Amino acid sequence: MVEKGILVVLSGPSGVGKGTVSQALLQAEPNLAVSVSATTRPPRNGETDGVSYYFVSREKFSLMIEGDEFLEWARVYDNFYGTPRLPVEETLARGKDVLLEIDVQGGLQVKNKLPEAVLIFLLPPSWKELEARLAGRGSESAEEVQKRLQWAKRELQSLSLYDYAVVNERVEKAVEQIRSIITAEKCRTVRFRDLKI
Amino acid sequence: MVEKGILVVLSGPSGVGKGTVSQALLQAEPNLAVSVSATTRPPRNGETDGVSYYFVSREKFSLMIEGDEFLEWARVYDNFYGTPRLPVEETLARGKDVLLEIDVQGGLQVKNKLPEAVLIFLLPPSWKELEARLAGRGSESAEEVQKRLQWAKRELQSLSLYDYAVVNERVEKAVEQIRSIITAEKCRTVRFRDLKI
Repeated sequence: MVEKGILVVLSGPSGVGKGTVSQALLQAEPNLAVSVSATTRPPRNGETDGVSYYFVSREKFSLMIEGDEFLEWARVYDNFYGTPRLPVEETLARGKDVLLEIDVQGGLQVKNKLPEAVLIFLLPPSWKELEARLAGRGSESAEEVQKRLQWAKRELQSLSLYDYAVVNERVEKAVEQIRSIITAEKCRTVRFRDLKI
Repeated sequence: MVEKGILVVLSGPSGVGKGTVSQALLQAEPNLAVSVSATTRPPRNGETDGVSYYFVSREKFSLMIEGDEFLEWARVYDNFYGTPRLPVEETLARGKDVLLEIDVQGGLQVKNKLPEAVLIFLLPPSWKELEARLAGRGSESAEEVQKRLQWAKRELQSLSLYDYAVVNERVEKAVEQIRSIITAEKCRTVRFRDLKI
């Protein structure tokens, strides 16, 4: 019998470095696969259906919501984004771990549907540092930076509903901590329930 | 403020290799200190009070039980053994992690007094292997080996009350897994309750 994989949800404020940490984590953990989201937004240049996203129509997305086919979904402006449940569950059943990089609201939706999911909150070393990282990207206006910081403070209110918090001071250390969390979760006695030694 | 250390309880059947794993773990984790037990048995050659054990009289031990000074204690034949609570709590308060190598009954006593203790059950790869290891030591009679195996099967009934299980197939791997558990436990959001970022 194959041991079921672990579903890892990684959340954290805009600018904390989720993308960089995720990439480094996927590099370091060959048993970890990233989940592909479904979206109603049109594909951009170079995006492939089933790789970047599953591109679906608004109607199809609505049907999927009604059919309870999402682990979580959200509307961002005019577009819908969601994590289809089936491919995630199939990957876990094959013993692969799955990484979901989603916002806190999405993470809590996932925990509600799959309580065995492991929720990790990526924290900045400090607010000052987060502000500096956001401003440093240069892609947002000063006003947008302030909006994102406020949103981050709101998200942080849900920290205690997450299982783990990892401070992204150095990417390598954050990745090591997340890998340790995955290793530890695989040692939980609930996973030894059918133990026959 | 110093972050409180983690109390790690390591249990497992006789012959599983607790001692070897503990030694390797202490080598690898400079922040981990082993707890010193109190006992009523007389010191043997080369044993130092406060290092090998705290050697105490039967009367003193009884007073300590009455004063709730033990995290756990047990009687083995004519002697008493126990883990004094104060030195453990002082070490944890200084930010050091503490390792307790005790039996399952003791582990559950500790969890009862300090629910934040992390209970790890060290498992043999198989019963056959455990039997072979016990027989291979040559220090027990065939009858004693069978008695220990039966005791191990009884202890294993409590596995689900432990937090983690680690299979001691290779010492290095078992040590790595226990180190990951310690790292992961330090990332638990309960430990970020007073977070001011």
